[in-house]
Amino acid sequence: MKKMTAGIIGGTHGMGRWMTGLLRAQGLAVSVAGRATKTTAVDLAGRCDVVVVAVPIAATAGVIREVGPRVKPGRLLMDLTSLKTEPVALMLSHSEADVVGCHPLFGPSVSDPAGHSVVLCRGRGENGYALMKAVFEKAGYRVLETTPRRHDKMMSVVQALNHFNTIVLGMAVAEAGIPFPELQPFSTPIFTTKMEIVRKVFTDTPGLYADILAGNPHTKKILASYARVAQKIRARADARDTAGLTRAMEDAAKTLF
Amino acid sequence: MKKMTAGIIGGTHGMGRWMTGLLRAQGLAVSVAGRATKTTAVDLAGRCDVVVVAVPIAATAGVIREVGPRVKPGRLLMDLTSLKTEPVALMLSHSEADVVGCHPLFGPSVSDPAGHSVVLCRGRGENGYALMKAVFEKAGYRVLETTPRRHDKMMSVVQALNHFNTIVLGMAVAEAGIPFPELQPFSTPIFTTKMEIVRKVFTDTPGLYADILAGNPHTKKILASYARVAQKIRARADARDTAGLTRAMEDAAKTLF
Repeated sequence: MKKMTAGIIGGTHGMGRWMTGLLRAQGLAVSVAGRATKTTAVDLAGRCDVVVVAVPIAATAGVIREVGPRVKPGRLLMDLTSLKTEPVALMLSHSEADVVGCHPLFGPSVSDPAGHSVVLCRGRGENGYALMKAVFEKAGYRVLETTPRRHDKMMSVVQALNHFNTIVLGMAVAEAGIPFPELQPFSTPIFTTKMEIVRKVFTDTPGLYADILAGNPHTKKILASYARVAQKIRARADARDTAGLTRAMEDAAKTLF
Repeated sequence: MKKMTAGIIGGTHGMGRWMTGLLRAQGLAVSVAGRATKTTAVDLAGRCDVVVVAVPIAATAGVIREVGPRVKPGRLLMDLTSLKTEPVALMLSHSEADVVGCHPLFGPSVSDPAGHSVVLCRGRGENGYALMKAVFEKAGYRVLETTPRRHDKMMSVVQALNHFNTIVLGMAVAEAGIPFPELQPFSTPIFTTKMEIVRKVFTDTPGLYADILAGNPHTKKILASYARVAQKIRARADARDTAGLTRAMEDAAKTLF
């Protein structure tokens, strides 16, 4: 039997490269298109059984519009971005192929699948979805199925709110007027952990975190809620209302844990 | 030679218990006063060579006022709180003993001293300071000497700003309207790490974190700066200004790392 073929657009870096390795390990013949490859996205779209769009969020819509019409019915078109509503809608409207929206909930440096999940959103067709579910589960990842809308709502907390919180911490520390090397010896375990996250977000791929924050359709609402909470806590801290602060944490803990 | 004696007020819990173990391991005869012990703070203050105040921040001033006058000149009075300006000033004005302000930059669950630091602030006298420096260094901790004022300025970033950031994240997640157990499967490694910190702060000793936040003399200024930064980043996210967000992170990274 002929090997199944996959084309990874943006397969030379990040999650695209990770996906390339994953599919090769499962016996697929994988071709890659990147900014520096001779093979183009259009080449792959016209000839592969599975076409994966793994370019940065900002470039995703353009690539889907370009390659979508070239992926034939019965084949699979899938994206890997951290947002799902818009990319899945675009894949459905610009292609007649099977469509799956995919979001691995981890970065390309993760080497052990244990404890890591991949979100899959059904777009169109059963075969493509079943194939990808099997691929990720066989590799050891947990597959979570949800709708694009619910995915983006979850990610407005897990990613947008979370990264906003990290960005504001990092910038506030930068503006505190104490050079970081002077601060570092005085670090506690919690501060060290949080500044490692700031370092990752600010120096790894800041553009990705900016896209995730600015691109989520629920960001405006969740940041408005963050601002209200911050104002409330700040007023209590300024008033030295330690009892009120303690109660606020205890009440939130009851909701959360 | 008679063993050196130490009295730990609040020695039955938390950092007081940790200090008890540390001094016993170095051969001192350590007595402990707590809410449930027959031995009182006043007993210890009158008879020990080293008297350590290890009660919660909110109770510290009262204990210093009570025991300070009973610690004899030439002996040592030391506190363990996360703030240094007020406790050191109080120990100096309410006692004629040697005075040291001490802040271990970690929690009582830390078992390995490697990589962990203890801040010492000289209050009065050389002997007490030299003794404590030797004790912590012999146990394997790094000793950082600074003034109470500089300590509290550092901690306004390392602790007050940091814990404020944690508290606001936890409360905003609680108010997002998605039950946490539903959110958890969708967690990324960064979100998991940050929610473990929220859990620790909200459920371990929320009162301690409230005291650290509300009690630091620099909190008002640092939270005002946090609010300004948050407002700026929120405006950029709402405007979907990913280039501006990315540049802000890159600029801050240059200052920080």
